[in-house]
Amino acid sequence: MNNTYSQLIEQLNKLEDTKLFQKDFLLTWEKSEDELKQIFLVAEALKYLHDNNISSKCFDSGLAISLFRDNSTRTRFSYASAANLLGLEIQDLDEKKSQIAHGETVRETANMVSFLTDMIGIRDDMYLGEGDRYQREVGDALDYGYKTGLLNQRPGIINLQSDIDHPTQSMADFLHLINHFGSIENLKGKKVAMTWAYSPSYGKPLSVPQGVIGLFTRFGMDVEIAYPEGYDVIPEIMDIASNNVKQSGGSFKKAKSMDEAFKNADIVYPKSWAPFTVMQERTKLLKADDTKGLDNLEQKCLAQNANFKDWECTEEKMKLTKNGEALYMHCLPADISNVSCEQGEVQDTVFDRYRVPLYKQAGYKPYIIASMMLNNKFKNPADLLDKLFKENKQRVKY
Amino acid sequence: MNNTYSQLIEQLNKLEDTKLFQKDFLLTWEKSEDELKQIFLVAEALKYLHDNNISSKCFDSGLAISLFRDNSTRTRFSYASAANLLGLEIQDLDEKKSQIAHGETVRETANMVSFLTDMIGIRDDMYLGEGDRYQREVGDALDYGYKTGLLNQRPGIINLQSDIDHPTQSMADFLHLINHFGSIENLKGKKVAMTWAYSPSYGKPLSVPQGVIGLFTRFGMDVEIAYPEGYDVIPEIMDIASNNVKQSGGSFKKAKSMDEAFKNADIVYPKSWAPFTVMQERTKLLKADDTKGLDNLEQKCLAQNANFKDWECTEEKMKLTKNGEALYMHCLPADISNVSCEQGEVQDTVFDRYRVPLYKQAGYKPYIIASMMLNNKFKNPADLLDKLFKENKQRVKY
Amino acid sequence: MNNTYSQLIEQLNKLEDTKLFQKDFLLTWEKSEDELKQIFLVAEALKYLHDNNISSKCFDSGLAISLFRDNSTRTRFSYASAANLLGLEIQDLDEKKSQIAHGETVRETANMVSFLTDMIGIRDDMYLGEGDRYQREVGDALDYGYKTGLLNQRPGIINLQSDIDHPTQSMADFLHLINHFGSIENLKGKKVAMTWAYSPSYGKPLSVPQGVIGLFTRFGMDVEIAYPEGYDVIPEIMDIASNNVKQSGGSFKKAKSMDEAFKNADIVYPKSWAPFTVMQERTKLLKADDTKGLDNLEQKCLAQNANFKDWECTEEKMKLTKNGEALYMHCLPADISNVSCEQGEVQDTVFDRYRVPLYKQAGYKPYIIASMMLNNKFKNPADLLDKLFKENKQRVKY
Repeated sequence: MNNTYSQLIEQLNKLEDTKLFQKDFLLTWEKSEDELKQIFLVAEALKYLHDNNISSKCFDSGLAISLFRDNSTRTRFSYASAANLLGLEIQDLDEKKSQIAHGETVRETANMVSFLTDMIGIRDDMYLGEGDRYQREVGDALDYGYKTGLLNQRPGIINLQSDIDHPTQSMADFLHLINHFGSIENLKGKKVAMTWAYSPSYGKPLSVPQGVIGLFTRFGMDVEIAYPEGYDVIPEIMDIASNNVKQSGGSFKKAKSMDEAFKNADIVYPKSWAPFTVMQERTKLLKADDTKGLDNLEQKCLAQNANFKDWECTEEKMKLTKNGEALYMHCLPADISNVSCEQGEVQDTVFDRYRVPLYKQAGYKPYIIASMMLNNKFKNPADLLDKLFKENKQRVKY
Repeated sequence: MNNTYSQLIEQLNKLEDTKLFQKDFLLTWEKSEDELKQIFLVAEALKYLHDNNISSKCFDSGLAISLFRDNSTRTRFSYASAANLLGLEIQDLDEKKSQIAHGETVRETANMVSFLTDMIGIRDDMYLGEGDRYQREVGDALDYGYKTGLLNQRPGIINLQSDIDHPTQSMADFLHLINHFGSIENLKGKKVAMTWAYSPSYGKPLSVPQGVIGLFTRFGMDVEIAYPEGYDVIPEIMDIASNNVKQSGGSFKKAKSMDEAFKNADIVYPKSWAPFTVMQERTKLLKADDTKGLDNLEQKCLAQNANFKDWECTEEKMKLTKNGEALYMHCLPADISNVSCEQGEVQDTVFDRYRVPLYKQAGYKPYIIASMMLNNKFKNPADLLDKLFKENKQRVKY
Repeated sequence: MNNTYSQLIEQLNKLEDTKLFQKDFLLTWEKSEDELKQIFLVAEALKYLHDNNISSKCFDSGLAISLFRDNSTRTRFSYASAANLLGLEIQDLDEKKSQIAHGETVRETANMVSFLTDMIGIRDDMYLGEGDRYQREVGDALDYGYKTGLLNQRPGIINLQSDIDHPTQSMADFLHLINHFGSIENLKGKKVAMTWAYSPSYGKPLSVPQGVIGLFTRFGMDVEIAYPEGYDVIPEIMDIASNNVKQSGGSFKKAKSMDEAFKNADIVYPKSWAPFTVMQERTKLLKADDTKGLDNLEQKCLAQNANFKDWECTEEKMKLTKNGEALYMHCLPADISNVSCEQGEVQDTVFDRYRVPLYKQAGYKPYIIASMMLNNKFKNPADLLDKLFKENKQRVKY
């Protein structure tokens, strides 16, 4: 995507009928192709500004709230960086330090924190059927607050990982591909293998594989998913991926093995996850606070996982890919054999060879999030980006 | 208070002899009538600026420290929003992550964190006789630091809830009334019922009812307080309220029942609290770390509370108010029957009908706090507000 | 150092061959005399700007990450204040809320949080042989990220206390001396007593005494260290101090007693620490998670400490110093007899007499840290300071 800044703006101006303004970003498959392109283009432009020490500040004040119901390093700092880049101050909503336990409704809390808030980012990926529902509940509450005049602006919501999708991850992943292969057009016909991989830990969320198959099938790629029997993702997301390719002209299929998926792949994304049915069971046990049940489930699943230790991204397997040179991807942190565990998702030498592209992949996330914020809050991002460029205010005052 | 911005500034300029500059805001009854009016007017002006996308930034750098010794959502975010609106960065003083346990004196800590700090907000409402005392101790420490030249400015202190008063709450409540009834003059002769209400939880602070009777008696309103026998607030605050009406021309009385207080009321504020004597006992037990004693006290008090389940703000009770249409108020979160508990302070249908005004009431808090900050730090707020309006810098760069 | 601002800039311009730009600040003895002077001069200039309400903002956006692996009040707020003063937003890396436990490498975490980060401050003082090593590992990781193009800038690292040195403390201490005695030249030939003192607590880090002897021997002072037998600091640091005086013309010796060190001293710095060998043992036990071993070690050490209760900075001992008027220093918080403990490092009346200079000493830390940040990020600080002064933007908009 070796575009100059003016070309980025030109491309932005060519997009039609995008409606990102004042819309939450929860699932990539709720967005049009042009809307997704708009996110990528604005992210590129913001990266260009930062690389060239030009200020992207478009808020003079305002809060960007983060609500993490699960641990996070990468996404937490990406969100913080994105907010700061645009001029918003991070305020973490730590449910332990709040009075929310009181039995307060989501409608109430959402409005109480939002009087001077511009953006809210939410990670809620622990319970199947909960995260996405919760994010929408917050959204409905904010709509209520805005419509009744309680809020003078409607804070935008960004999904920082739900039970269904992980759009800031998959969009960063995809922007990495665009840059790696030169353009979004170049990705047409490229084969991606999104495969399960063995991990000695258990219960990893489904949102990454689901996010990847839900997004990568939008732009004419040939996507294959592979996993051991029983390790299904949510069936509805498989359907979404299948429908996507009908529009985009690519293909989507379930391969029978890691080998089959890797064969001739341009890109491989081997990553562990817990089966959809296990996540359902786990959600039930978590809600019932059934510690013993949870322990039993974990033991059962780990034993089950151990049957598939050969689902490891080894040098051998990498040789099956296109010219043995497929791009290896991971959302990080990976379970690296001999490094973070005895045996895991990927052989250490493979990981080492791909360290630079892997970190680069992660580096797009702050800009993707900043782009989601900017597109939510500004009706005409091209105009704003043009203005920022022309003002040419230094980020660091040299 | 449908004033235009210039009228707000005009009214500000008419106020006489206000001395808010470089004075902490701890108790409303330490402030003159004009000083309170000044807080309201500046808060309105700041709200106007935010509503009209005009920047209120008057600090280029500087910290606003928050010190919460008890949980908080509303006040935490209000304080953060207020600081951010003016250009100060929040820095939370988390006593668990600090070295304060070491046996360090308040004088030392207060100065150590204040070298580049402009404001300090403190919530300390757990122990009777402690919160207000602690806030003053911090203030004395800062006076010492400023007088001896250690600090080049004296950070201002805002009481974010003490054992005695909750001024950011009561002032926001009152600004809500001013707006709801059209002007501060229109509030003269209006009847307010500040009443105890049943809650299945125990130990709620006294600062809200005390704050309300201490403030609402300042502007010619007819204030009635009602609570079951034994549920007294701190006697000194009752005296303050009685004295207030001698100046303001309103009235203050203790009604015998919720019904009596509600009768013909224009405004009702039913809210649970723990009796003053219980809070004293609890403070003693907390200090002695007497877990068993605390459990016993809780059991005794909950049993006691249960005798007064009919102190609930029901539709029936609301009918007793002026035309059955009194404004229902609460500091939130409320114990709503059938929602947050089986039976609580307010019937769900009453709460639902008043949801919008209730949330609006809460929405004034960030501006009240920002106004307290601004009035503490700027000698001539009218001039500053005039300047901000004329500069007309956009908060969000459209 | 009663210099006007222009004189500060003039002095800065006279310094030769300083290489602070894009270099981490980990140990004072890795820096040249002129480099240390540059830190002091820039700190003074930043203090001048703040005292005169002139904005020092030189970043329009950017994060300053803090990573505290041990509790902190003073340094935490100093770091926050410094970052805020220059325009960077604090983002605390709380290892408990992150996914780092996963077995992730330092190389990975360091890069993951740094895409839009300008500075990283690290406190890691618990394990002997660990803190400094860890800070360098982070530095190597960032070098890797910068060289491979992952980061468009290399975040600077500031040592906020390691097992070896505590440069933000010792530099603030020394800037206090420069101001107290009028100039850096006036310090030549002044006698400093850095002595152990009794404390009823145990395991205090060695970084303060090491930092003091490592720095104060750089500028021609006569430094004496004194401690009870067996309370040695790391031997290598004693060697560094000895070597320093060969260059600087001062002297460094080990005195046999507190009395000997105090005799005729211009400055005394009595402060408890744990013997180097104990810290080694403790590190071993901590790594082995040997709770019982740690308890035993603590008991043994406390009993050992109790043999040296006469190592207290009393009025009597103060009389031994030059005219009985030596400047008393401490990094705070001190163990004050009859205040924070029954008997401790210093008599209460001595501490009280020196409270103002002690707090003043602490007050230099934010400016020292801001200076370290500025010198890391700006090639020509004199030019920048000149520009800031001439722009004369108000910090608070009066």
